[in-house]
Amino acid sequence: MAILVVGSVAFDSIETPLGKRERCLGGAATYFSLAASYFTQVRVIAVVGDDFTGEHEAVLTRRGVDTRGIEHTEGKSFHWTGSYLKNLNEAQTLKTELNVFESFAPQIPDAYQDSEFLFLANIDPVLQQSVRSQMKNVRAVCGDTMNYWITGHGENLAKVLKGLDALLINDGEAKLLANDPNLLTAAHKIIGMGPKNLIVKHGEYGSTVFFGENSPVSDRGRVHVFRAPALPLAQVADPTGAGDSFAGGFFGYLASQPEITLRTFKTAMFYGGVMGSFAVERFGTERLQALTREEIDQRFALFRELSHID
Amino acid sequence: MAILVVGSVAFDSIETPLGKRERCLGGAATYFSLAASYFTQVRVIAVVGDDFTGEHEAVLTRRGVDTRGIEHTEGKSFHWTGSYLKNLNEAQTLKTELNVFESFAPQIPDAYQDSEFLFLANIDPVLQQSVRSQMKNVRAVCGDTMNYWITGHGENLAKVLKGLDALLINDGEAKLLANDPNLLTAAHKIIGMGPKNLIVKHGEYGSTVFFGENSPVSDRGRVHVFRAPALPLAQVADPTGAGDSFAGGFFGYLASQPEITLRTFKTAMFYGGVMGSFAVERFGTERLQALTREEIDQRFALFRELSHID
Repeated sequence: MAILVVGSVAFDSIETPLGKRERCLGGAATYFSLAASYFTQVRVIAVVGDDFTGEHEAVLTRRGVDTRGIEHTEGKSFHWTGSYLKNLNEAQTLKTELNVFESFAPQIPDAYQDSEFLFLANIDPVLQQSVRSQMKNVRAVCGDTMNYWITGHGENLAKVLKGLDALLINDGEAKLLANDPNLLTAAHKIIGMGPKNLIVKHGEYGSTVFFGENSPVSDRGRVHVFRAPALPLAQVADPTGAGDSFAGGFFGYLASQPEITLRTFKTAMFYGGVMGSFAVERFGTERLQALTREEIDQRFALFRELSHID
Repeated sequence: MAILVVGSVAFDSIETPLGKRERCLGGAATYFSLAASYFTQVRVIAVVGDDFTGEHEAVLTRRGVDTRGIEHTEGKSFHWTGSYLKNLNEAQTLKTELNVFESFAPQIPDAYQDSEFLFLANIDPVLQQSVRSQMKNVRAVCGDTMNYWITGHGENLAKVLKGLDALLINDGEAKLLANDPNLLTAAHKIIGMGPKNLIVKHGEYGSTVFFGENSPVSDRGRVHVFRAPALPLAQVADPTGAGDSFAGGFFGYLASQPEITLRTFKTAMFYGGVMGSFAVERFGTERLQALTREEIDQRFALFRELSHID
């Protein structure tokens, strides 16, 4: 099944303890698309400027990603400058240049209308909602957000949350959104805001999904929990895009399955961790560009062995 | 198989967001013993003062814990005053009154000499080493330590580490001991210091064991990793003793098994998490005093369901 993703295709300038890169291809939609491309067909909605060349586009098309929904416009692409020198677990944003993203009005090409899976990457919830409302035939919608939208655009975000099958955020964002320092009670509150399931990413400690009582995969009538591990890594080259790669692995795997069941949902959580673990091994999208499904499944087996008694 | 534990039997005065308790029975050896008592015979080596009454001793003996090795001496028992008001994940020590513990010289009763399992709870490494050297027939030795001994008593600690089958510490202690902010490379370094295996506790994110190449349960010739989950809890009454209870569940289960294998080791990690999750539900040792093996195994099943795909 095809996934439609809307989000940023951007350039990132990054500094980490292991080095520095200027204007490498990044953006949430890019990481998501590359990660999901190993599982299913991916279609991108985004906007880029003149600085986005055929070479950049080829990074996506080489992985079979459908880029017809990337709008080319005059000006410069979204450019993010960040540093992980102080803390490898949390980016310090040095500069955000929205550029052509500032006036982005997502349009869905007709060829994308039959997409059954929709991923709303971390962008203005107004744009997320606009795309959501243009897609009539989706079977499952997942979304991401961040502190900036939670604190400053809560009302718009609330509308998006109501339509989500799963919200994917990190610990800090979950506690901020629920205004609750306890993860479990925060999760209850967030599920009360609309998403059928909540996935919370814990970085080096893995991820947790809280199934809401309206979740189609939970038959328990209560919030039920599943935790997937992360792989301890000796070296993290660049944490940028780990969360988007998690989302791509998670949703890509789900979209590749005939049915969304409790078992495929749990398995998808593992594939999310797997793709996140690859993403951070090298700078930018380097590692995600050149994986094989065999490498991915070997690492999946490692994640299973890492966490299963038998 | 019987476990011998040496460590503190103490009184704790604790304040948490949920309340306050004055001088409730605590100490690492107490939490460890109660947790392990659900799995196997436990024998305690400790020292207490006049304030430790028959009622306090009965908390242990009611659980079948052998208290003949608890030395009664004139003066007051060890008393720790701590607060979790600022941070539920890290105790703020307000006062440490060693009292009778200051001149503790552990003596092993003859009746304890056939103990095959030895747990060196968090005390002065000199005392840990003294007990270790008095026990000739032990099959497995695990130990704990803390920042205070790592930074100020490194040489003494180094001797203890060489004799351990497993060291159990938390993230911060592991990174401090190895002087390395990366958990995996820190684990390699610590295993290089002697312990055959390293167990790192992550609080609400579970625990990780790194198997050294000399570990009898790892056949890989490389450091191999296993992660056990923690249970998301809506409410933590009192985090005191969570780590000691983890150790008690972990080592108690192992000691109850005919053989230490990779499978029993992994299972033991789960039981560690289970006992830690019970410990924090109420103040002090309240919850650990009155469990049933059935409740414990039900929670074990929950931990399994929480982390296993099938």
